Amino acid sequence: MKQRKKQPVQTRSAILEAAGSEFSRKGYSGAGLGPIVASAGLTKGALFHHYPDKRSLAVAWATDSLAAAMESLWLTPLGGVASLDAFRSLSRARCMELQPDDATSTLVAITAETAAADPVLAAALDAVFSAWKSAISSLLERGKAAGWIHRSIQPEAEAAFYVAVFSGFTVTTKASPGESVRRTCATALEAYLETLRAQ
Amino acid sequence: MKQRKKQPVQTRSAILEAAGSEFSRKGYSGAGLGPIVASAGLTKGALFHHYPDKRSLAVAWATDSLAAAMESLWLTPLGGVASLDAFRSLSRARCMELQPDDATSTLVAITAETAAADPVLAAALDAVFSAWKSAISSLLERGKAAGWIHRSIQPEAEAAFYVAVFSGFTVTTKASPGESVRRTCATALEAYLETLRAQ
Repeated sequence: MKQRKKQPVQTRSAILEAAGSEFSRKGYSGAGLGPIVASAGLTKGALFHHYPDKRSLAVAWATDSLAAAMESLWLTPLGGVASLDAFRSLSRARCMELQPDDATSTLVAITAETAAADPVLAAALDAVFSAWKSAISSLLERGKAAGWIHRSIQPEAEAAFYVAVFSGFTVTTKASPGESVRRTCATALEAYLETLRAQ
Repeated sequence: MKQRKKQPVQTRSAILEAAGSEFSRKGYSGAGLGPIVASAGLTKGALFHHYPDKRSLAVAWATDSLAAAMESLWLTPLGGVASLDAFRSLSRARCMELQPDDATSTLVAITAETAAADPVLAAALDAVFSAWKSAISSLLERGKAAGWIHRSIQPEAEAAFYVAVFSGFTVTTKASPGESVRRTCATALEAYLETLRAQ
């Protein structure tokens, strides 16, 4: 334990990693602090030293770990998209590889479960959604400027729509898992994206 | 209690109503059987007589109460839609009146929380999603036959897409409540529906 105490950054990182795994598999209410500390190799006292309660742990996880995971999964690749075909390909890939415990699915599930009842957690989760939406909105702005997105398209509205579509996919594919559902989702999403193309 | 015992249908109905209220506000893991029996005016023994555990209660609630609520909210109105403009109006109305504890939001939240880990509950929830999708698919088929939906549209794929979009809205509007977000969602949804119109 002594070594852990001298490495607060590593300790917090181990806690947040364990918390993320627990939240993604069991949701917010279902997540136990016991399994989290056990998985991080700590005591509850050490956990409470860093995060006084489950809510502050969830806020830190959303702000740090979840935001970083969404950046790798979405923001960075979206920043490199330079054509509608590339956006279609990325969207299809994200659909086909969707997993019930990945960053997008976990963001959606924890938000659906908690955001209406907890404004503080809602604000932390909304910041993650906002970064995702902004990356898409910027992509659509770039596409309009470069001439591969139709000039009548409103980037912010379409970005909000895209994020809602994909968020919905994370839920409907849980109810009905299997590759054929994902393929239908991916195809419908590509058909929608095609409506944004410059004529 | 004697009278309740003689009215099993009313007792089950009172339990499912109380369960629905609890699930919609607290999710599945967060829902307490104590508050449910208190709200239904019963003992835990009476609850367990009808539903041996929380999962069987949730399955019955999804199959009966939630399915009936989705029928009133979606299936019946969708059955009466006879033009793209009427479909747009209904979609906008459902967006604008979206509440974090209504039937659609609760279906999505409970599915996001539980479906990946519980195949039995997932099947009950998937049946509710399927009925919703079928109603939209039928509407699009009718529209194709009547000439107000474009003949190239694939009703099942677009129905799955519509359900995902709306499911996503229930989550993103929780993260970011307020009328302006709903209005953006409604406008983007109408713009998408316009892409289905027969030219």
